[in-house]
Amino acid sequence: MTILDQLIQGFSRLPGVGRKSAMRIVYFLLKADTEYLNNLSDLIRRLKPSIRRCSICGMYTETELCSICADHRRDRGIICVVEESRDAQTIEATGEFNGIFHVLGGVISPIDGVGPEDLSIRKLLSRLSPNSDGTGVREIIIATNPTIEGDTTALYLVSLLKNIDILVSRLALGLPVGGDLEYADKLTLSRSLKGRTKIS
Amino acid sequence: MTILDQLIQGFSRLPGVGRKSAMRIVYFLLKADTEYLNNLSDLIRRLKPSIRRCSICGMYTETELCSICADHRRDRGIICVVEESRDAQTIEATGEFNGIFHVLGGVISPIDGVGPEDLSIRKLLSRLSPNSDGTGVREIIIATNPTIEGDTTALYLVSLLKNIDILVSRLALGLPVGGDLEYADKLTLSRSLKGRTKIS
Repeated sequence: MTILDQLIQGFSRLPGVGRKSAMRIVYFLLKADTEYLNNLSDLIRRLKPSIRRCSICGMYTETELCSICADHRRDRGIICVVEESRDAQTIEATGEFNGIFHVLGGVISPIDGVGPEDLSIRKLLSRLSPNSDGTGVREIIIATNPTIEGDTTALYLVSLLKNIDILVSRLALGLPVGGDLEYADKLTLSRSLKGRTKIS
Repeated sequence: MTILDQLIQGFSRLPGVGRKSAMRIVYFLLKADTEYLNNLSDLIRRLKPSIRRCSICGMYTETELCSICADHRRDRGIICVVEESRDAQTIEATGEFNGIFHVLGGVISPIDGVGPEDLSIRKLLSRLSPNSDGTGVREIIIATNPTIEGDTTALYLVSLLKNIDILVSRLALGLPVGGDLEYADKLTLSRSLKGRTKIS
């Protein structure tokens, strides 16, 4: 197999990249400058050895603590619980959240053989004990995906947390901004109705 | 900038990959096995040094001649003229063509400052002189894209070839197979009408 074919096959394995896109990418690389190619090659090789998980929240980081856990201006009283590191990045990108995160590392999914013990839940609970000065976590925002698995995981967390005096909230479900009622599915619309907000 | 951000930026430059897809790809790589990553990294680094252009047709190859020009079972009497190496690959994939190729390396495009002298046209003409035994190229199939630039280039080639006793043809234009009349644009439909084929 030629290097072209091998590379096309390699790129085809990436998510969202089919054989045709992989071909386009490889022909693009053939015309790209060598510096870019060598840099991309280096980064791919260095990726896994350079990245670890933050020892507090579990987010991907190059240092012992992620930039969020290391930032003393963040409100340590609010923990946003997400499935994966990238979900935390997506929430960060809104610029609306000033708390800290906790990465579960997945969701409860019996079909895939993932149970609560496979997730970083014990660690989450250990983060909830109050500090010696009485301060501590005031609120937990559960930001798992609105899927069956995400909902199951959220419910499980709620049941674990019900005896602890901490506010537990969940991201609002409803119509996406800029969306169209006509194209909303029934379930989203019904959640959107249930969660309607008073405006005057 | 962290290695994650650098890699996301690197992947974002690839065609068809936006920032969100690049993020997805990088998070996928973080979970992929190291062997795959190292292999991908190697292939990207080796790509440009390993690839050259076939000394006959101009297709990308790892050897002096591409696999098609080196194959003695191919009909050297029919040359299919394409814009880029990948177009030849696409035609090869149909399995319907047994001739050989010629890669122009682009199309005539005054806006981009590309004139006929920037394309591999002189070389194409030099391939048309008959062999000492009188055999030689019988047909040239012009397979440039059906765009303004592709059409211009095709017309230019036709004018160059009109005094040479070789059949010059062009890929048929018409409705795509499985397509729908309703969604065909006027131009395609009008070409499809003009090029209608007799069925009985």
